[in-house]
Amino acid sequence: MARVLTPRAEDFPRWYQDLIAKAQLADNGPVRGTMVIRPAGYAIWERMQAEMDARIKAAGAENAYFPLFIPENYLKREAEHVEGFSPELAVVTHGGGKQLAEPVVVRPTSETVIGEFMAKWVDSYRDLPLLLNQWANVVRWELRPRIFLRTSEFLWQEGHTAHATAADARAYARRILHEVYEDFMVGVLGIPVVVGLKTARERFAGATATYTCEGMMGDGKALQMGTSHELGQNFAKAFDITYTSAERTVEHAWTTSWGTSTRMLGGLIMSHGDDNGLRVPPRIAPIQAHVMVVKAGDGVGEAAAKLRDALRDAGVRVGFDDRTDTPFGRRAVDAELKGYPVRVEVGPRDLAAGNAVLVRRTDGSKTPVPVTDVVGAVLAALEADQKALHDEALHRRESRTTEVTTLADAIAAAATGWARVPWSAVGAAGEAEANGQGVTVRCLLRADGSVPDTEDEPDLVAILARSY
Amino acid sequence: MARVLTPRAEDFPRWYQDLIAKAQLADNGPVRGTMVIRPAGYAIWERMQAEMDARIKAAGAENAYFPLFIPENYLKREAEHVEGFSPELAVVTHGGGKQLAEPVVVRPTSETVIGEFMAKWVDSYRDLPLLLNQWANVVRWELRPRIFLRTSEFLWQEGHTAHATAADARAYARRILHEVYEDFMVGVLGIPVVVGLKTARERFAGATATYTCEGMMGDGKALQMGTSHELGQNFAKAFDITYTSAERTVEHAWTTSWGTSTRMLGGLIMSHGDDNGLRVPPRIAPIQAHVMVVKAGDGVGEAAAKLRDALRDAGVRVGFDDRTDTPFGRRAVDAELKGYPVRVEVGPRDLAAGNAVLVRRTDGSKTPVPVTDVVGAVLAALEADQKALHDEALHRRESRTTEVTTLADAIAAAATGWARVPWSAVGAAGEAEANGQGVTVRCLLRADGSVPDTEDEPDLVAILARSY
Repeated sequence: MARVLTPRAEDFPRWYQDLIAKAQLADNGPVRGTMVIRPAGYAIWERMQAEMDARIKAAGAENAYFPLFIPENYLKREAEHVEGFSPELAVVTHGGGKQLAEPVVVRPTSETVIGEFMAKWVDSYRDLPLLLNQWANVVRWELRPRIFLRTSEFLWQEGHTAHATAADARAYARRILHEVYEDFMVGVLGIPVVVGLKTARERFAGATATYTCEGMMGDGKALQMGTSHELGQNFAKAFDITYTSAERTVEHAWTTSWGTSTRMLGGLIMSHGDDNGLRVPPRIAPIQAHVMVVKAGDGVGEAAAKLRDALRDAGVRVGFDDRTDTPFGRRAVDAELKGYPVRVEVGPRDLAAGNAVLVRRTDGSKTPVPVTDVVGAVLAALEADQKALHDEALHRRESRTTEVTTLADAIAAAATGWARVPWSAVGAAGEAEANGQGVTVRCLLRADGSVPDTEDEPDLVAILARSY
Repeated sequence: MARVLTPRAEDFPRWYQDLIAKAQLADNGPVRGTMVIRPAGYAIWERMQAEMDARIKAAGAENAYFPLFIPENYLKREAEHVEGFSPELAVVTHGGGKQLAEPVVVRPTSETVIGEFMAKWVDSYRDLPLLLNQWANVVRWELRPRIFLRTSEFLWQEGHTAHATAADARAYARRILHEVYEDFMVGVLGIPVVVGLKTARERFAGATATYTCEGMMGDGKALQMGTSHELGQNFAKAFDITYTSAERTVEHAWTTSWGTSTRMLGGLIMSHGDDNGLRVPPRIAPIQAHVMVVKAGDGVGEAAAKLRDALRDAGVRVGFDDRTDTPFGRRAVDAELKGYPVRVEVGPRDLAAGNAVLVRRTDGSKTPVPVTDVVGAVLAALEADQKALHDEALHRRESRTTEVTTLADAIAAAATGWARVPWSAVGAAGEAEANGQGVTVRCLLRADGSVPDTEDEPDLVAILARSY
């Protein structure tokens, strides 16, 4: 059989590009760095949105929408923020046929404009916490774009909250980190992310602390899958977000922000994909079971349609393919590429014996199953394969993480995976040295795996890796 | 009681602005013409999206996402299209700190960029119809902005489809018009829109036919709530969307596009709002029943919480307000403003008699109901009020529509409502004359109320009105 994709071992970046094109997930847009998300890719993003949105709402945040265009002067109010984002801005200079008096920037993120409105809406301590989220597009001009991972425009959710105390802000930033991001990524995406604190060097521009979820991809590199920030009083001071306390004093609020994006699609592909295409964990899969008519024959179409309906009635998200004028082999390759967790193949020969064939994408197994048992077998396979994909990714992370004690060994280990090294053996100077060799500190952890409050805590472990 | 809003009869536009501010639906953004959609407004938009999205998917279209930025040259390829949109474009001239070689426009609509990709994806007649939709923001620079109705940036869905024949394209544009737009607006928003054909003068820039849903607002003006377009082969020729037919000839496709936006929020407000605030039809209401603790007292909070849970278990979307440290009157005014269909007020006195008070927003009625009957009474009220709001809007449309026979009478009638006049008494010259007096032809209908194919059919009726 002709190979469909460049094998991962041969050229991982090319495999990634091939997969995105052949599985029809996305295309490059006409303006450099932009992307077109095709229906097969967007359907996964919609499932991500639904799962994340439910968790964000359960954490008490409400959705809103703030403008795409931000006055240039807003960004300048927080010094680190403008320094961090200036090189990436897209600037609108003309509107309605005229040059604008003040140029406006296309939002790279919305701390500034949301800060301005928080200041209007917050009056008393009773108005706090103010918990907002928006689903939106943002623009950060990219010189080295790669679909889903780094694009000039991407889709994301960005949460923005204001609190009365530093402790409340910290607790909420961490609640989102664990209850929304980690829970979703591990439990639904099947990606066993490591959750930790970013170093000062890797912090979000304008934050006092940045927490991160880091996933290990199929080639051993790290991908930052989502971040949650404590912004201290930086934006509250820049935008005058104040409240009157119960004691009638006027205080600045403490704010947070947190985001995850279409970059998670890249993480999904690079975590679970194999040389035959995508493998989508059942909980996030838009199509969980794909019923295929192998070839036309007596009662075959009807039997397939009946199975489709029975699966749907059992709550399974079902695809259906009875395009028997297209060769079955081509359709099967396409189903592999798109990564449907389970295929139910219905053909004349098996059906004559009362069977359909259950094909599991995760391990490639093909099992004849009596037609009457298909629903139960599919449900069991979906449950098992969700766990199998997670466990496979966890095994990779564990087997490709090396425990070392020196910076030099950590940099060496990062050639093929992750290094765990005492932070005291790295420090700011060691971090700069590692960066010079293409290796970054992904995050800091306590010895027990929990998330530290600051990088100054004793006995922290640093994870060093190459990354996307 | 101090009045909360400017009464509609005194100043309808001011009432509209007051309501949006006081009900906390939206704010003006910092860049002229942009808006901030606040959680109370956005929650309604999310319900609109969910209802529409289900209908769009039922009509076979798949969601995708195309870039915000479009090369300037794309817009120039379809002559009418560029002429229509040029005055409204926002142009990005700088990106990543550099002047761009070719300026890019922020999408005002996406026929061009989607046309470019349809051309890549369509090969054979088997690839047709290609049915796409996207939920996105678009920018059209507005000189006279008004929140939700005309804003420089708005949120919408835009559908784009390609077909093998003109007949198939027409059938699909009309299917969306009726099965998605009309069904949603009438059945869920409770707005009895009139569905008809736009005149050549009012057609979308680049279309061969534009169909529209027109609603009558509380002041008798018309609001265009959604449009569906046949684009003929205009965009297929400009972007070279061709397919190989079953007979092996190469043919240009026929395309459609169709859109509805956050403008529907303006329509909702102006259709159903009254002098006390918004009235939200139950089917679209994010909160259908709002349980309020009138004041603290023995077992009151517990009884209210029990009712909240019982309503939620019955599938009702429930709000809960036990902020008894805020005066009840203020909370009740706020609930009126926000337009929750039903309030369930639980206070010590009524509760002692075993009752809660059911307050219906639609007619203002207050009825003591035994606590054990609340769920049934709420369900019945929601059902009845959905119909009542629709019927009230229909009654207004009928009573404020005047049947006339001359252009002069039609223009006169449009001072206070809609005029129905034979299209033969208007024509292109009469339409221009009406426009000069601030009156437009909203749409054309057949005598039996059905939607004509062209404005040249005999015996058509024109609806003339002032509009937003």
